[in-house]
Amino acid sequence: MPDPAFDPAALALIERGADEILKREELEARSKLGRPLRVKAGFDPTAPDLHLGHTVLLNKMRQFQDLGHQVIFLIGDFTGMIGDPTGKNATRKPLTREDVLANAETYAEQVFKVLDRERTEVRFNSEWFGKMTAADMIRLAAQHTVARMLERDDFAKRYAAQQSIAIHEFLYPLVQGYDSVALEADVELGGTDQKFNLLMGRGLQEAHGQKPQIVLTMPLLEGLDGVNKMSKSLGNYIGIAEPAIDIVNKTMKIGDDLMWRWIDLLSFEIGIAEAARLKADVAGGALNPRDVKLRLARELAARFHDAAAAETAIAGWHAAVTGQGDTSLLPLHEVRIPAEGLRIAALLTAAGITPSNAEAGRKLKERAVRVDGNVVEDPATTFAPGFEGVLQVGKRNFARVRLVAG
Amino acid sequence: MPDPAFDPAALALIERGADEILKREELEARSKLGRPLRVKAGFDPTAPDLHLGHTVLLNKMRQFQDLGHQVIFLIGDFTGMIGDPTGKNATRKPLTREDVLANAETYAEQVFKVLDRERTEVRFNSEWFGKMTAADMIRLAAQHTVARMLERDDFAKRYAAQQSIAIHEFLYPLVQGYDSVALEADVELGGTDQKFNLLMGRGLQEAHGQKPQIVLTMPLLEGLDGVNKMSKSLGNYIGIAEPAIDIVNKTMKIGDDLMWRWIDLLSFEIGIAEAARLKADVAGGALNPRDVKLRLARELAARFHDAAAAETAIAGWHAAVTGQGDTSLLPLHEVRIPAEGLRIAALLTAAGITPSNAEAGRKLKERAVRVDGNVVEDPATTFAPGFEGVLQVGKRNFARVRLVAG
Repeated sequence: MPDPAFDPAALALIERGADEILKREELEARSKLGRPLRVKAGFDPTAPDLHLGHTVLLNKMRQFQDLGHQVIFLIGDFTGMIGDPTGKNATRKPLTREDVLANAETYAEQVFKVLDRERTEVRFNSEWFGKMTAADMIRLAAQHTVARMLERDDFAKRYAAQQSIAIHEFLYPLVQGYDSVALEADVELGGTDQKFNLLMGRGLQEAHGQKPQIVLTMPLLEGLDGVNKMSKSLGNYIGIAEPAIDIVNKTMKIGDDLMWRWIDLLSFEIGIAEAARLKADVAGGALNPRDVKLRLARELAARFHDAAAAETAIAGWHAAVTGQGDTSLLPLHEVRIPAEGLRIAALLTAAGITPSNAEAGRKLKERAVRVDGNVVEDPATTFAPGFEGVLQVGKRNFARVRLVAG
Repeated sequence: MPDPAFDPAALALIERGADEILKREELEARSKLGRPLRVKAGFDPTAPDLHLGHTVLLNKMRQFQDLGHQVIFLIGDFTGMIGDPTGKNATRKPLTREDVLANAETYAEQVFKVLDRERTEVRFNSEWFGKMTAADMIRLAAQHTVARMLERDDFAKRYAAQQSIAIHEFLYPLVQGYDSVALEADVELGGTDQKFNLLMGRGLQEAHGQKPQIVLTMPLLEGLDGVNKMSKSLGNYIGIAEPAIDIVNKTMKIGDDLMWRWIDLLSFEIGIAEAARLKADVAGGALNPRDVKLRLARELAARFHDAAAAETAIAGWHAAVTGQGDTSLLPLHEVRIPAEGLRIAALLTAAGITPSNAEAGRKLKERAVRVDGNVVEDPATTFAPGFEGVLQVGKRNFARVRLVAG
């Protein structure tokens, strides 16, 4: 077991990509107590379908584990089992205990692709809140003031905009804060948007005679567009359950600036010093950024699948974009087309690699369309059911398709 | 058992002295359901030492009883047993169950001088809140918004003045409101200052599928000075445990305007119509207001003692102020004076019937001072230990004293 005390390199690793550490000197001092730190992060009890954005936090947890610390994966099932007590949000139905356990299983399948199962304590906050009485909740509510709660950014905005805030919403940050008391957390990790709630734990721990936890916030990961935070609804995400080829393909499409950001937040293999070297080499023209991106893409594909699947995906990507190599490595998508066949422009759109037939037409004129590596420029070219091959637009958009009638 | 439906006279009685009824037409309709109304009033679980101000509410409860309704005397012990959970108020220690029961006994001794014990349901809200979980409290908190809670007068003022409001203070009105749900109250009575909390019950009852309770607020009783509300700290009160002579003596000193007010809020014997007649007679000069005051004083003394004690007190008062009759009926106060004796002015002040020796001197000059019914005007008159008699200043201030050395 590694010595849990943070040396400068360990501290630099923990700080890497972090938004804020409150307080850095407390963290350093606490790591020297000669025992593993208890590092808590809380997760929704709803059924998860994680994307890379969610793994930013998991990666930081993993770094703590690798440095010899005890990570606590806390599932906030207590409030989940209450649901939406105002009854206004019909989509927030109360979860049953069976739901919670099933969701925890789904979590486990996904998060243990990043976390070390042996060093992860999975806990449910219903364990302590389920035993609490109404009087206990009143005592907890007494630990904080209305004014300070209204300082929280989203509450302040809603109050100013005269949008209603139900009183129980003031209790939930206290519930989250009390979890840190129950778990005797040394450190709590969360997104920047969680900072207020994380600080709540500090105050409550002090009120309960504990040393206040160190709060470490991680930024929200920008999605494929490099601008907006990664999210399902924006479609700018890479799901961790996606096929290796999709992880590689999508990663290879991100911009160079975003690549360096992703490396800081998502890579274990490319360390701080190496990232700096690579960046200098790219800046000096000694290195093609595509090669750095390939390393990142391979690492991510391997993390969520395995090394062999990652190699296959990389080879598939390579075959597709160069027109050389074994394109049969690419995943095969069935595309339904009319029995009489489809012209090339319509086919590219049906396969989802051009946004419209008009755009596909332009790409044909630009000689940017290839089928099985060969340029196609005649818009009259027609494909019939039964065809199987690789369609490609530009350098990075491709799909291996099989056409079926219907 | 009387028909609980309110006829116009009954409704007039219920409205007598009330500040507000929300809503009067609901009350009238509800009384016609053919069953006694459940009329709730909540009381602090702390040890009570009631004065006439507190009895305003009890009197209204008694009127409901006399009209055939079921009164619920609710002791809010649930929050009392929590105490001050912020720990800032050392004087608000959590009560034990034994404290609560002992205090309830003390209440019973006092309130059943007004209420009909047979028609009073004494309840403790720990009965239902003691079984509630933290999750139940969160569900309850969801029933109300922060903005509406901040509309409550005292919260609004404290928030504006940047005085801290602990979050549990937002839960207490909900606790009080939920009591009405648990008790299925038809009517809740309270002081005007309680209006916000009483209305809380209406909203919660509706949310629980009950008809919202009718809210009846009573004003705060003005104290002996006729200006400030009656309170222990202002010293302008008549405690219900005071000797009959003190109840009579203090009542006889109040102003005429206050007398009519007290009759509305405190008298059962002087009805609405009779009060109007008496007032007209006094205004027309046909009746000395002192005689009306004597009736009120006798009624109050009899209520908290008995008819015989009231008669004795009235006779004592009469003997003192007229200098005729048996002053030995007056209670005897021991006054400690120097062994060498005390001059009359200093003695009047020591006995508490003049505010200062200077004022006593003025009263001597005005020939307003009597000892045992005889005018004393010589300021050199001195009294020695061993003296026993009735000191009097003006028509209404007197005391029967025994002087002792020391």
